[in-house]
Amino acid sequence: MAYNLLKGKKGIIFGALDHKSIAWKTAEMAYAEGAEFTLTNTPTAIRFGEINELAEKCHAPVIPADATSVPDLTGLVQQSMDILGGKIDFILHSVGMSMNVRKKKVYSDLDYDYFSKTLDISALSFHKILQVCFRLDAIKEWGSVVALSYIAAQRTLYGYNDMADAKSLLESIARSFGYIYGRERKIRVNTISQSPTLTTAGSGVKGIDGLLDFTDRMSPLGNATAEECAGMCVLLFSDLTRKVTMQNIFHDGGFSSMGMSLRAMKMYNRSLDCDDCPPVD
Amino acid sequence: MAYNLLKGKKGIIFGALDHKSIAWKTAEMAYAEGAEFTLTNTPTAIRFGEINELAEKCHAPVIPADATSVPDLTGLVQQSMDILGGKIDFILHSVGMSMNVRKKKVYSDLDYDYFSKTLDISALSFHKILQVCFRLDAIKEWGSVVALSYIAAQRTLYGYNDMADAKSLLESIARSFGYIYGRERKIRVNTISQSPTLTTAGSGVKGIDGLLDFTDRMSPLGNATAEECAGMCVLLFSDLTRKVTMQNIFHDGGFSSMGMSLRAMKMYNRSLDCDDCPPVD
Amino acid sequence: MAYNLLKGKKGIIFGALDHKSIAWKTAEMAYAEGAEFTLTNTPTAIRFGEINELAEKCHAPVIPADATSVPDLTGLVQQSMDILGGKIDFILHSVGMSMNVRKKKVYSDLDYDYFSKTLDISALSFHKILQVCFRLDAIKEWGSVVALSYIAAQRTLYGYNDMADAKSLLESIARSFGYIYGRERKIRVNTISQSPTLTTAGSGVKGIDGLLDFTDRMSPLGNATAEECAGMCVLLFSDLTRKVTMQNIFHDGGFSSMGMSLRAMKMYNRSLDCDDCPPVD
Amino acid sequence: MAYNLLKGKKGIIFGALDHKSIAWKTAEMAYAEGAEFTLTNTPTAIRFGEINELAEKCHAPVIPADATSVPDLTGLVQQSMDILGGKIDFILHSVGMSMNVRKKKVYSDLDYDYFSKTLDISALSFHKILQVCFRLDAIKEWGSVVALSYIAAQRTLYGYNDMADAKSLLESIARSFGYIYGRERKIRVNTISQSPTLTTAGSGVKGIDGLLDFTDRMSPLGNATAEECAGMCVLLFSDLTRKVTMQNIFHDGGFSSMGMSLRAMKMYNRSLDCDDCPPVD
Repeated sequence: MAYNLLKGKKGIIFGALDHKSIAWKTAEMAYAEGAEFTLTNTPTAIRFGEINELAEKCHAPVIPADATSVPDLTGLVQQSMDILGGKIDFILHSVGMSMNVRKKKVYSDLDYDYFSKTLDISALSFHKILQVCFRLDAIKEWGSVVALSYIAAQRTLYGYNDMADAKSLLESIARSFGYIYGRERKIRVNTISQSPTLTTAGSGVKGIDGLLDFTDRMSPLGNATAEECAGMCVLLFSDLTRKVTMQNIFHDGGFSSMGMSLRAMKMYNRSLDCDDCPPVD
Repeated sequence: MAYNLLKGKKGIIFGALDHKSIAWKTAEMAYAEGAEFTLTNTPTAIRFGEINELAEKCHAPVIPADATSVPDLTGLVQQSMDILGGKIDFILHSVGMSMNVRKKKVYSDLDYDYFSKTLDISALSFHKILQVCFRLDAIKEWGSVVALSYIAAQRTLYGYNDMADAKSLLESIARSFGYIYGRERKIRVNTISQSPTLTTAGSGVKGIDGLLDFTDRMSPLGNATAEECAGMCVLLFSDLTRKVTMQNIFHDGGFSSMGMSLRAMKMYNRSLDCDDCPPVD
Repeated sequence: MAYNLLKGKKGIIFGALDHKSIAWKTAEMAYAEGAEFTLTNTPTAIRFGEINELAEKCHAPVIPADATSVPDLTGLVQQSMDILGGKIDFILHSVGMSMNVRKKKVYSDLDYDYFSKTLDISALSFHKILQVCFRLDAIKEWGSVVALSYIAAQRTLYGYNDMADAKSLLESIARSFGYIYGRERKIRVNTISQSPTLTTAGSGVKGIDGLLDFTDRMSPLGNATAEECAGMCVLLFSDLTRKVTMQNIFHDGGFSSMGMSLRAMKMYNRSLDCDDCPPVD
Repeated sequence: MAYNLLKGKKGIIFGALDHKSIAWKTAEMAYAEGAEFTLTNTPTAIRFGEINELAEKCHAPVIPADATSVPDLTGLVQQSMDILGGKIDFILHSVGMSMNVRKKKVYSDLDYDYFSKTLDISALSFHKILQVCFRLDAIKEWGSVVALSYIAAQRTLYGYNDMADAKSLLESIARSFGYIYGRERKIRVNTISQSPTLTTAGSGVKGIDGLLDFTDRMSPLGNATAEECAGMCVLLFSDLTRKVTMQNIFHDGGFSSMGMSLRAMKMYNRSLDCDDCPPVD
């Protein structure tokens, strides 16, 4: 069911890799809600992913761009305005990667080149997009920019590694640039802190299965899915949230406000009560 | 412009006094978005306000109820279900009052009967509504309950007095009952922390004019209006926010994420630089 | 080992029931650090607890008082000033009780008389103490007032019930009155959010054992003990924290900043991996 | 007056430039409290500052080191252990610099090489120190590491620019590494969020005078001074805070919990009421 929430709106969506991606689901829903947009990702992700399938479905051109490259981003934004015929109403940033995670470098033994790259790809890229658009005056008054974040920005989860720091930085950039964009252009900038989601990108995080079970049991409404997150993105792009800015909105079934749930405690206690289970340290 | 976001949904709206009320604007927008609902307020507020005008406009029956009275609330919910023909999808709680504020009792000289009354009217009433609905199993699966709050729940504003404590308690009740409702009924409970708004109720707060100017200048998008807040309420009632629960969402033009803005600092500095102005202590 | 951190300071300590109490440990440490103080509790708690043993050890008179009674508190403060020979430097509020918890009323079926009582005993009592002292001008410049809180004020823990709401209210009162006391008297008011602690009072909370294991494994430094909490209280009473006010300080081994630890996840995963364990819903 | 809080403790103190520096005051107080330590700063800061005066006073050797250089930090830590005769008990990180601020690049026109440098100097340096110490097993069990932060990490202040993002990243690193250090070594890592302080470093921030007046009037206890901040550092190094970790502690006279104070509002309102003042936009 669609509401025409984005009728006539133009956008740029970063980070749709395959049908599991939150950006993919957001593109589908934005299309259903009446938006036109361009899709972008790195050349590699475009080659290995399924973005062309999405592009066809949504009649959305794919423009390759390295989100850490100011020239690439400048080209992307200019082409998007050319193709869409005017200024942009919304942008989704769903970009993140840690070589330290990929190479299994633990947090007390990080490679600093990788760390800088993590920050550059996962956080500074957001500043670059915003700065490029600012220079080009590419976003329409009352436009909306959203980046995807995770609660690791506030609370440490073992194994999430330097991505936690990148998400903190990302949320800070959203606030800092949100102030400038609000003051100068009446444009809002927010982040959504989404439940852990089994996307292709997220599936590399260590111990993700146990964590997903835990967060699902901790969250009174269960983990939020990628489709549900797309709904939240669409709302933040719509005209109904014009005065929401510089916020990090938890879209997580309630997880962020839980200390301990009955359902998670039961699962935990079963381990405590298990005499035959292997010992844990 | 309407989107049919609440098509077929049934609700109860507390606290529409006159056309300045956030509850009033929410009723208007909910009606435009396709909802049916009942309106409620205390007998006194009904008599002195203009709710019947709203009722006519929205084809919504008015059911008087004291929000601190469990029997009144039970009657209200039962009648609402009878009239609307089934379970409730959404509830807006916009209820608050402090006799200490009205009687100009300062925070270091509170009347404790008044203080209890402030908490009862402004916070416990929310628990009572939720508990009455829980007993009657009155809210539909994936229903949504919203209460209006204010940043005084987190940060002290001089003159806001015991209402700050009431709002903290209100937000806590939203979390506590949000957990139960999520777990047991798949229903969400949230609060919206709205910009200071010049409603008839809010206009009694001491020094409200200077504060409104300050918050407007601090907020990169300016203060959010009552109409805009109504939009946020509608979104939280819609099916697009099903996994948002136990949250306090700042709808404030960015105020809550600001430490100091250029525009507010300029106004402040003008006072600092003023040699002819009367002295301030 | 002692540092003379409270040399010459005079105080009032609420809530020492027996040797497990945080207030008890704080009294012992405050005494060792050079403070003089009075001890107070309800007549019932004095009768059933072991406070006289503590009183003897610390040469501290016991003054019975109902912390919800303004006349009792007035008498307590006046007597304390008489006995100690002047104004008070520090106060510890460690007071809380829920009849709903005791009578096993669940949160969706609260007794509202009990709820009001929970708030009155666990939160309004703090306002009353502060207001009584304010009227009597009983606290010395740069004095320090501390109340004990718990993370349930921010995050819902199943079974903690209406005490969560009381702790939210308590923390709000600390902020609200902290503003007044800071501005008018240069006195600070803070709360400490302590790890779950197996005091005699806390032992009534449902499922406390599993929770203690979980929080201990989640906290990189383990749960903080009552003795360690006493250290934090003493620091907040000392002259080294004069500019810390209106804060809620987490004293919890890191729990509040954790999303998931390796040690807790291992225990949880053992349950997930257990084929022979009884099913959990 | 001293308490012997750090008797026998060994430390490393980063960032004492001149007598206005918080690190300088912390060194003085740590010395008075019985600690031995080394001092470090960049060669340039050592040349232009007055650190040798401090070194003499505290009998503390100065070891030049670039806090972004792992080899420099490795040398610093090894030399410190050699000189002090064993493992380190405490470290103070008071390091920060933004070329974007210095070169007056506004936030919507940042130089990205400068931005990376800001993050490297002001935040990654903290990770590097912690990682170097981790590898060398240089910190004693129950040791304590503190970095200085600012509320810009949570709330945007115009003119603070990319330093806000650096402070967010710094606080995140404190949490992330605090988890590892707590779990593996029983060592705590915290940040102190200090009032704006007129240090030589801080004096470059745009519009600092008006801001200092505003924060002083907003804070019920006034701005915290560098000396007072030193007291907080010493407490966090002492054995009385062993279970405080992964926290950001506001040491700010109450500023962080204020929405609006009477004193700040009066100053602001004087500008509002001024008919003869020059117009502000």
